[in-house]
Amino acid sequence: MLLTSLYIVGITAEGMSGALAAGRHNMDWFGVVFIACVTAIGGGSIRDVLFGHYPLTWVAHPEYLLIVCFAAILTTRIPYFVARFERTFLVLDAMGLAVFSVIGARVGIDLHPSGAMAVIGAVITGVFGGILRDIFCARIPLVFQKELYASISLLVGSLYVVCEWISANYFAMNQNLIIIACLSIGFVARLVAIRYHLGLPTFKYTPKS
Amino acid sequence: MLLTSLYIVGITAEGMSGALAAGRHNMDWFGVVFIACVTAIGGGSIRDVLFGHYPLTWVAHPEYLLIVCFAAILTTRIPYFVARFERTFLVLDAMGLAVFSVIGARVGIDLHPSGAMAVIGAVITGVFGGILRDIFCARIPLVFQKELYASISLLVGSLYVVCEWISANYFAMNQNLIIIACLSIGFVARLVAIRYHLGLPTFKYTPKS
Amino acid sequence: MLLTSLYIVGITAEGMSGALAAGRHNMDWFGVVFIACVTAIGGGSIRDVLFGHYPLTWVAHPEYLLIVCFAAILTTRIPYFVARFERTFLVLDAMGLAVFSVIGARVGIDLHPSGAMAVIGAVITGVFGGILRDIFCARIPLVFQKELYASISLLVGSLYVVCEWISANYFAMNQNLIIIACLSIGFVARLVAIRYHLGLPTFKYTPKS
Repeated sequence: MLLTSLYIVGITAEGMSGALAAGRHNMDWFGVVFIACVTAIGGGSIRDVLFGHYPLTWVAHPEYLLIVCFAAILTTRIPYFVARFERTFLVLDAMGLAVFSVIGARVGIDLHPSGAMAVIGAVITGVFGGILRDIFCARIPLVFQKELYASISLLVGSLYVVCEWISANYFAMNQNLIIIACLSIGFVARLVAIRYHLGLPTFKYTPKS
Repeated sequence: MLLTSLYIVGITAEGMSGALAAGRHNMDWFGVVFIACVTAIGGGSIRDVLFGHYPLTWVAHPEYLLIVCFAAILTTRIPYFVARFERTFLVLDAMGLAVFSVIGARVGIDLHPSGAMAVIGAVITGVFGGILRDIFCARIPLVFQKELYASISLLVGSLYVVCEWISANYFAMNQNLIIIACLSIGFVARLVAIRYHLGLPTFKYTPKS
Repeated sequence: MLLTSLYIVGITAEGMSGALAAGRHNMDWFGVVFIACVTAIGGGSIRDVLFGHYPLTWVAHPEYLLIVCFAAILTTRIPYFVARFERTFLVLDAMGLAVFSVIGARVGIDLHPSGAMAVIGAVITGVFGGILRDIFCARIPLVFQKELYASISLLVGSLYVVCEWISANYFAMNQNLIIIACLSIGFVARLVAIRYHLGLPTFKYTPKS
């Protein structure tokens, strides 16, 4: 199925970026594999734990963990080769973000009639992997400070809810069509955000003392 | 119901304090909203996940998330106005602490006949939001070093267990009476702790090398 | 039962080492107790939450928490006495690692026919307590950088899976025998790793800019 194939590409890309982050902190192979797994599957795990959606994806499919571990170890052998494809990475990461968001939206949509949990599920799945990666590297998560990222998940999640709602109430749309539409729009929106350095406004607060 | 109204005041105050913390680290609006949500509802979420108590409050009631998000965004518009009411904040935070602790105690009381989980539930609900806020800002949690805070939750949780036990074995007390008694004592105890800078003893250990 | 007794020794040793870590950051008694609990029972809690294995051990047996709290407070009274027995600690910690790994393998073995979750369960239970301890002290987890540690859990978990598989398919082995074999090998392997400073290769990556 399309979503599964893209999901595998997504976790591979996320795993590699996690491995590079671990390498920046001189971690050993366990650290590299751990950070890679957390980056790739941490978002989905947090979502499933918060939603009580058991079993977790990687518990039912440990082969996904193997893929991430392999990608991580491979990255330690050819880090500069991997890093040279920075642009390719950004593209793969954008695709991963869109895929993770759609998957999160699908898991969350049945939890609340308003569709709010589809949006929350999209955001958690999309960004929490990167947040955990940074926490385990003891630094403030990048996603709180850089270009539009969580906003893309929010967009994808909202779009998914709207499509499902239209499909249920007005004219039935094919599930795959909805998925492809949400994926494409999220993917393009992320690339546009990177290209034009679009970001949310920043909040700077210095306590007067 | 009383507890629900106070809960909403509590998460609003916690959300605003979380937003200020995010502003101290120059986060963007997503970071602000994320830190605000984690501060306001993180404690209850951790409690529910550890206790297997599904669905989580904000999954069943996404409107609570909306309130926190609104409070956070509002704080970014008027940070110095919000910060000027520091004393009001401390009072609202004290109330939030008492409310969160009572709610945590109620969730935990049925999990173990000894009532131990009511006490643990009170402490987790009361302090974990602040702990997560600090972790996501990459600093050592304040609650490990300042005035009595977790101890207030411990007090509230223990008091709740004792009242429930008396109510079940000796003379029946009205649930609302128990709640109000626990709330008031926790609230006053926290204010006294702030006023007189009461804190737990500190443990300082420097490895000899 | 053997495993329970060793488990209690394990959480006591982990709780004491957590308390010393808290003391290095001048935490108050709540911080000390919190870090001690997280170090001692955090690994098992994360495993159970990820596996949906409820109730958590300490929810069903709050007495374990009491033991850890007592060990933590005791450590604050006699830190240098405790620290002087550094070698004893390393031995107890090695034993704790082996015990936690075996327990984790047993919890995970039924989740996936391949036995992969037994290995993952062993690693999570063995190392996540230390990872959480370091995260709550706002530093990069030690386990990503020092001697073989997670690898020992991996070894113990794999060994357990192999023994169970042989036992189920070829000739039945006594459960206690399997446990003792896995424990002993893990324990000895960890001591050998410490003695000879065996570690995994490190991955160092410096972005070219």
